[in-house]
Amino acid sequence: MRAEQQIEAAHSAFIASQDVAPPVRAAWLVAVAASIEAHADELVALAQAETHLGELRLSGELRRTVFQLRLYIAEILAGENLDATIDHADGAWGMGPRPDIRRVNIPLGVVGVFGASNFPFAFSVLGGDTASALAAGCAVVHKIHDGHPELGRRTGEVAIEALRTAGAPEHLLSTVTGRDAAEALVDHPLTRAVGFTGSTVGGRTLLDRIAARDRPIPFYGELGSINPVFATERAWALRGDEILTAYAQSFTMGMGQFCTKPGLLFAPTDRDQVARVVGDQVAQGQRTPLLSAKLRAGFDAALGDMCATDGIEVVVAGDFAESPAPTVLLTTAEVIRGNPAILEREMFGPATLVIRYQPGEDLAGLAALLDGQLTASVQAQAEENIDPLLAVLRQKSGRVLWNEWPTGVTVSYAQHHGGPYPATTAERTTSVGPAAIARFMRPVAYQGFPAAQLPPALQNENPWHISRRVDGRWQRHDQGTGSSS
Amino acid sequence: MRAEQQIEAAHSAFIASQDVAPPVRAAWLVAVAASIEAHADELVALAQAETHLGELRLSGELRRTVFQLRLYIAEILAGENLDATIDHADGAWGMGPRPDIRRVNIPLGVVGVFGASNFPFAFSVLGGDTASALAAGCAVVHKIHDGHPELGRRTGEVAIEALRTAGAPEHLLSTVTGRDAAEALVDHPLTRAVGFTGSTVGGRTLLDRIAARDRPIPFYGELGSINPVFATERAWALRGDEILTAYAQSFTMGMGQFCTKPGLLFAPTDRDQVARVVGDQVAQGQRTPLLSAKLRAGFDAALGDMCATDGIEVVVAGDFAESPAPTVLLTTAEVIRGNPAILEREMFGPATLVIRYQPGEDLAGLAALLDGQLTASVQAQAEENIDPLLAVLRQKSGRVLWNEWPTGVTVSYAQHHGGPYPATTAERTTSVGPAAIARFMRPVAYQGFPAAQLPPALQNENPWHISRRVDGRWQRHDQGTGSSS
Repeated sequence: MRAEQQIEAAHSAFIASQDVAPPVRAAWLVAVAASIEAHADELVALAQAETHLGELRLSGELRRTVFQLRLYIAEILAGENLDATIDHADGAWGMGPRPDIRRVNIPLGVVGVFGASNFPFAFSVLGGDTASALAAGCAVVHKIHDGHPELGRRTGEVAIEALRTAGAPEHLLSTVTGRDAAEALVDHPLTRAVGFTGSTVGGRTLLDRIAARDRPIPFYGELGSINPVFATERAWALRGDEILTAYAQSFTMGMGQFCTKPGLLFAPTDRDQVARVVGDQVAQGQRTPLLSAKLRAGFDAALGDMCATDGIEVVVAGDFAESPAPTVLLTTAEVIRGNPAILEREMFGPATLVIRYQPGEDLAGLAALLDGQLTASVQAQAEENIDPLLAVLRQKSGRVLWNEWPTGVTVSYAQHHGGPYPATTAERTTSVGPAAIARFMRPVAYQGFPAAQLPPALQNENPWHISRRVDGRWQRHDQGTGSSS
Repeated sequence: MRAEQQIEAAHSAFIASQDVAPPVRAAWLVAVAASIEAHADELVALAQAETHLGELRLSGELRRTVFQLRLYIAEILAGENLDATIDHADGAWGMGPRPDIRRVNIPLGVVGVFGASNFPFAFSVLGGDTASALAAGCAVVHKIHDGHPELGRRTGEVAIEALRTAGAPEHLLSTVTGRDAAEALVDHPLTRAVGFTGSTVGGRTLLDRIAARDRPIPFYGELGSINPVFATERAWALRGDEILTAYAQSFTMGMGQFCTKPGLLFAPTDRDQVARVVGDQVAQGQRTPLLSAKLRAGFDAALGDMCATDGIEVVVAGDFAESPAPTVLLTTAEVIRGNPAILEREMFGPATLVIRYQPGEDLAGLAALLDGQLTASVQAQAEENIDPLLAVLRQKSGRVLWNEWPTGVTVSYAQHHGGPYPATTAERTTSVGPAAIARFMRPVAYQGFPAAQLPPALQNENPWHISRRVDGRWQRHDQGTGSSS
């Protein structure tokens, strides 16, 4: 089937299923989650072969992916994604008589999802974009990442078979491969939104292509982030070695192939301390080849550029064999002030840049030189007043961490995985957590409808037992929150 | 002051005020509302002189504008716009131990707002975009519409003086005029979002200009809408004349200069009925000149194109003196099927197109030919099953009405003033109602923060007494809902 035909088939599946009750859609997704779990051994083995990631990491990622799906299922059963709002007719309304008007979110239609190379489960065929789009009631056409074609194909088969057995319409989920199909997916009039996780260059190309469409559609792109960490003088004096050790663990985790890898550390350190502590730490770490030859080439080029930059020295040297060893570069705040573009260079892989600063440094001023980020972290003592720094970091990022590390993104209600461009193309939205579902819905208001003609979510009797706002007051039905408590 | 300097000053005002407590911000906006009310006579007189709209209409619009501001004030006092979400650390969380993570919406920064010609109050200096952006905590630079420069200038003065007296930072709100300033506003790196209400051509130009920015920003454009009305055969048989009369009242209201003017009526009617009923009705209506010479020229051109189209006949003829008389055109479903592009031609002013259909017509099939709309209406009997038609109208529009008329947009919680392109450039958002505030905010998550370092909205003690979701369960504080009940 050509990509265009797949998109049309996906649209038909969307039309056929857009109005099913939450428990019906939930049952489809429950079947998918169970089937992925049942095929975990096969899928993890496929992922190992195609990505060089370890079994432990991949099993954990699969568990996370299944958990995420179940959390979103609980969310749609509670109706949180519908934002159902009812205003009864009110003759005394302040601006003049108000008609009966009711609003509910409906799914957008066909969603194109581009899988990422570095999360073969959690940001791929059944990753966060697919899970949230399906939970929203959309149909999904997933572009399998070239880095794990067999895993993508097989994950798709397992999920599609589960959907079929559970009674979902054919083509609610399908997969495509290759560049032509990817372009068709972005251009097709029936595509109503696109989700993407990848490089800034690739993401910008898609953003511009979407901007040229006759009808604009939302593009949820997660692009580049360097995830700066700021250590205060006081924290460094008390636990500098400890911070450096944890930093080394975080930036080498998964060979540094995370969008949340800390790529910058601002600290009142020196060359000897970095060499000693980080050198010790990275000598102990496991090495594996990077995800793909293409990614490796990009890493080598980015690292080479950094090493060739005036004022940057190599402190912990990586070798350049099949599995690159972690590399730590060092520069100073003065160099950065003279060439702030250094802060915008992402090295996707096991390399990082330490920026040495002198006592009395204006950390907020340094932070102001940063580009948009997914995360920004501080290492500080609880009693310190670092409000000016925090104010800038909040402006620059989507998640601010205190004495924690940005790698390891929890999937929970409060999570925000997003941030100002180029971290994402849509900073108001998250690609992780139940709040991601709303990205694939839009509101529709119903005015003056006879009771029996209203959609169930807006009927006075509340047949779906969902949370609703009625005449300005919330009426919550706290069912199925997915909480462990 | 040059526009660039104004934007920088607005950014400083934003930085200075982004974190004030809701009651402080509310007090600033309360002062603005009171001051506009106090200057109502002066402002309405200015508006009359510049827009040709009547005193009654303008007074009502001013009241609506003030009401809207007060409704948004109530919303931010309740904290609904913050979407505060707290997940406590949880060692038993399903995907592995969860850190303490908390999320809150923060304001975006400087917002550029382009005023509309047809609502000199409700979509202008203190219109919905400005009110929602200020409520969100943003600073606003407002581009005054060329159609009412004196009113824009004076409204700005009154509001700015009220803000100053109430203690808000200078430049939280300012106004600009002219094309150069408008372009600076769209292009400036410190501009973080743009709101616009106007023509499809103008809006698309802005959309493309924003897409070419180095850093993309959200563009909330409300462009064109033709607002189709579908009358069923049964409804027509029972009350065809009554429907035509109400249709004539709706499309001539305010000389048809509303984005929600019904521009298409699909009905099993004939030439004689339309001529008789609508002709009678429009003969009674008041005539005033259109808002501006430019708008009049656009109306004449659009109407001329329609009249020159094969298969379209003039049934109620407008004269083309200073104040154009309402004009009704008639065509058939067959003509539309052969040339569906007719349905995409907006005539902004007192003209409308009736599409005559034959018994047994497939109304859903006709509706499928439509472009994106702000509204779509049905005239039908409560006992009819018109689900296929409703399903298509929901896909095509942001508000569906049953036996009501789209003009007269209430400001309430459930309102959705939006719709698929070209009705708007951001169909997931509304420009009317408290839900509009969220357009100018973005989420930030705080992970692992010491209790005393958290922003007030996320502290366990809930010092702002706002609604929050804690570990998946909502804790509502239903204060100040603005409801009349």
